[in-house]
Amino acid sequence: MAKKQIIVPQILKGTREFGPEEMQKRSSVMQKMIEVFARFGYAAIETPILNPAETILGKYGEEGDRLTYAWEDNGGRRIALPYDLTVPVARFVAANWRTLSLPFKQYMIQRVWRAEKPQKGRLREFYQCELNVIGTRSLMADAEIAKVAAEVFCAVGLPDVVIRVNSRRLLDAVLDKFSVPQEKKIEVIRNIDKLDKAGREKVTEALRQEGIKNSEELMTLLEPAESNEETMKKFLAFDLSELNEFFSLCREYAIPEEMLQFDPSLARGLDYYTGIVYEVVEKGKEGGALCAGGRFDDLCSMFSEQPFPGVGVAFGFERMMLSLEERGLLNNSAGSTRVMVANFGKETEAGCIGMLNELTQNGISAEMYLEASKLEKQMKYADKKRIPFVVMCGSDELAKGEVKIKIMATRKQKSIPQNQLVSYLNGYSSR
Amino acid sequence: MAKKQIIVPQILKGTREFGPEEMQKRSSVMQKMIEVFARFGYAAIETPILNPAETILGKYGEEGDRLTYAWEDNGGRRIALPYDLTVPVARFVAANWRTLSLPFKQYMIQRVWRAEKPQKGRLREFYQCELNVIGTRSLMADAEIAKVAAEVFCAVGLPDVVIRVNSRRLLDAVLDKFSVPQEKKIEVIRNIDKLDKAGREKVTEALRQEGIKNSEELMTLLEPAESNEETMKKFLAFDLSELNEFFSLCREYAIPEEMLQFDPSLARGLDYYTGIVYEVVEKGKEGGALCAGGRFDDLCSMFSEQPFPGVGVAFGFERMMLSLEERGLLNNSAGSTRVMVANFGKETEAGCIGMLNELTQNGISAEMYLEASKLEKQMKYADKKRIPFVVMCGSDELAKGEVKIKIMATRKQKSIPQNQLVSYLNGYSSR
Repeated sequence: MAKKQIIVPQILKGTREFGPEEMQKRSSVMQKMIEVFARFGYAAIETPILNPAETILGKYGEEGDRLTYAWEDNGGRRIALPYDLTVPVARFVAANWRTLSLPFKQYMIQRVWRAEKPQKGRLREFYQCELNVIGTRSLMADAEIAKVAAEVFCAVGLPDVVIRVNSRRLLDAVLDKFSVPQEKKIEVIRNIDKLDKAGREKVTEALRQEGIKNSEELMTLLEPAESNEETMKKFLAFDLSELNEFFSLCREYAIPEEMLQFDPSLARGLDYYTGIVYEVVEKGKEGGALCAGGRFDDLCSMFSEQPFPGVGVAFGFERMMLSLEERGLLNNSAGSTRVMVANFGKETEAGCIGMLNELTQNGISAEMYLEASKLEKQMKYADKKRIPFVVMCGSDELAKGEVKIKIMATRKQKSIPQNQLVSYLNGYSSR
Repeated sequence: MAKKQIIVPQILKGTREFGPEEMQKRSSVMQKMIEVFARFGYAAIETPILNPAETILGKYGEEGDRLTYAWEDNGGRRIALPYDLTVPVARFVAANWRTLSLPFKQYMIQRVWRAEKPQKGRLREFYQCELNVIGTRSLMADAEIAKVAAEVFCAVGLPDVVIRVNSRRLLDAVLDKFSVPQEKKIEVIRNIDKLDKAGREKVTEALRQEGIKNSEELMTLLEPAESNEETMKKFLAFDLSELNEFFSLCREYAIPEEMLQFDPSLARGLDYYTGIVYEVVEKGKEGGALCAGGRFDDLCSMFSEQPFPGVGVAFGFERMMLSLEERGLLNNSAGSTRVMVANFGKETEAGCIGMLNELTQNGISAEMYLEASKLEKQMKYADKKRIPFVVMCGSDELAKGEVKIKIMATRKQKSIPQNQLVSYLNGYSSR
């Protein structure tokens, strides 16, 4: 017989797969985020992964379209995968706003796709988490989103972050003062947005080439001062009422003062932002934002004539996981199974399974080793799965109505009456 | 200015989107399933959605390939979306078995895709949930999977199910007895698998056309009797040791007797099953299975020369949701927000946000209405979001250090001291 062809079990570059341990870490971080969202009244929605191409394409210009996975299906329909979560959310709201509670407080956690050349930190398939309040012009919404972001970073274990804040309205007024013509503004804003990566010199030069005469002076004005108060003072010639009210609301929401930085150079490249914009970065760390967003006046305008003002942020879940990993904050805690019942073969099988039933019925996560292998092999399995307790009940113990419990961390073991097993384990967790 | 083009915010036929209420129902069912899996020591894994086409195609024959979403990306790579979760799991195990705890107890919940013509109950994008033990020949694994399935259906609120059980080994021996040649067996099994949908007459006829002379007699033999014992008696001429041990293990696992039916006509169409097979159906209800699977000897053989015997089932999450919906078991319980703080405008804003902070800091899910709208509008919002409590604190109340609490279900309201708000609400949940 010809040798059977074996297919290499590889995955596509730029995609990832996760085994039990990594999944446990990821779920635990996601759960903490979801807990914060729910605590502030945000609800999950879900939108399709397969989309009619026209609902996804054409929103981010040529570059975005090139990086969108799109193809024609067997029925000649153009299909596209989400490039980010903003467009799917906008489409959802435009289609369903009549039945939603407005303002609509929503979050969505889902994979998105980019037809990129994969490299470090740049994946083809990755998770994003988008959080929005849609349907209100109230600045309370802007402050609340900042509050939720602050709480998320504390909850996941990254409290050393700074929420950089600016106002697109202020930036607009500043550009007016520097005689930047309306049609050049978005290009100028995109250049300023590159400040972190390109550095001040290059941005100043780029602005000069755009025809801004006082680009040096502009960049000096946009530089944040030592404190938020000092920075504010630089803009006394401008209308600061929006920013003042925002910061005052943030104080009412009890966002720690040191977490907020007024940064007049913060621009955010996307052109749909119209008011407060923010970006969350780790203190004293270069590199991209962990979370970013801002206020928009009509996010849904491609799908509806109805105006939907709102404010939203996207959390970079993968980047957050990287930061937590780097800081050693994703330790291998116990696995999901608390107790393994050792397997001593046919003779004691019924008794051991009976014990297993008692454990699981009492809500204790337990499993019996599925084969009557050598005890050493069974113990290795328990160690690898990080199971904290092994229960042993051979024919001697069964006859005496006893069980041996081995505490895997200390390797110590003790015998207790079988009918005290559940209460022993429940007691152990409360010590 | 030309009128802006509005894109219809539609979704692709055969895909679905879920708003907050539906998401809450779905998550709650999923959570119950996950809780059972974890309680029995099963861990989540996750595999990519974008796959090299060769890892997905060619596993289900022409029909499967035709229904798989596959396309060529910009770099000329053939990409495919998962058609089911069995192949991704097999690929994952073949790629990672050296680092896994074996036997590997795993589950995966994820969307899969079929390039179908959508119709009632047939979607292009839907959730599946796959549960497997891989790497053991122990019949305990077969019984454990049945136990977990039984527990899942009890946990989600569908305890009136029957787990129909058969053995491919027995079926094989029966076909030998009826002189079915080896090369015709899989076709015969596929025909028997259609019994539920096609009816006995058509299957008997199809078998006759396959050349089985005693097809009438065969179908009579395969008919289950009144009780499992009676059915067993029909097969005394065959080796029943596997089935006997399986049912005996099921009794040790305390699976309710009435949940298990030995059904010798159960075949399961897929040709990779080699031992015990099962199918979970609702009692007294026609229609497809809610869960199905069985034992396989080498699930991973397309990806590895290593043998990976195991046993697994796939739960049809969407079908389970439909059943729960039909039975009215997905009622609209309270939303995720417990308390809404009413908004009375600027003057009382700081005080009200302070109260909101106290609630959320104490783990009580709360939100303040984001605009100082008319109270009636705010109450409508609370009703629509099914928020059980509304807290009102105008300038009078603030001055007196009081708050008004309105219990939305009864429309009753009472005043309490502000500093008792958290303990009042915590006490309320324990009444």
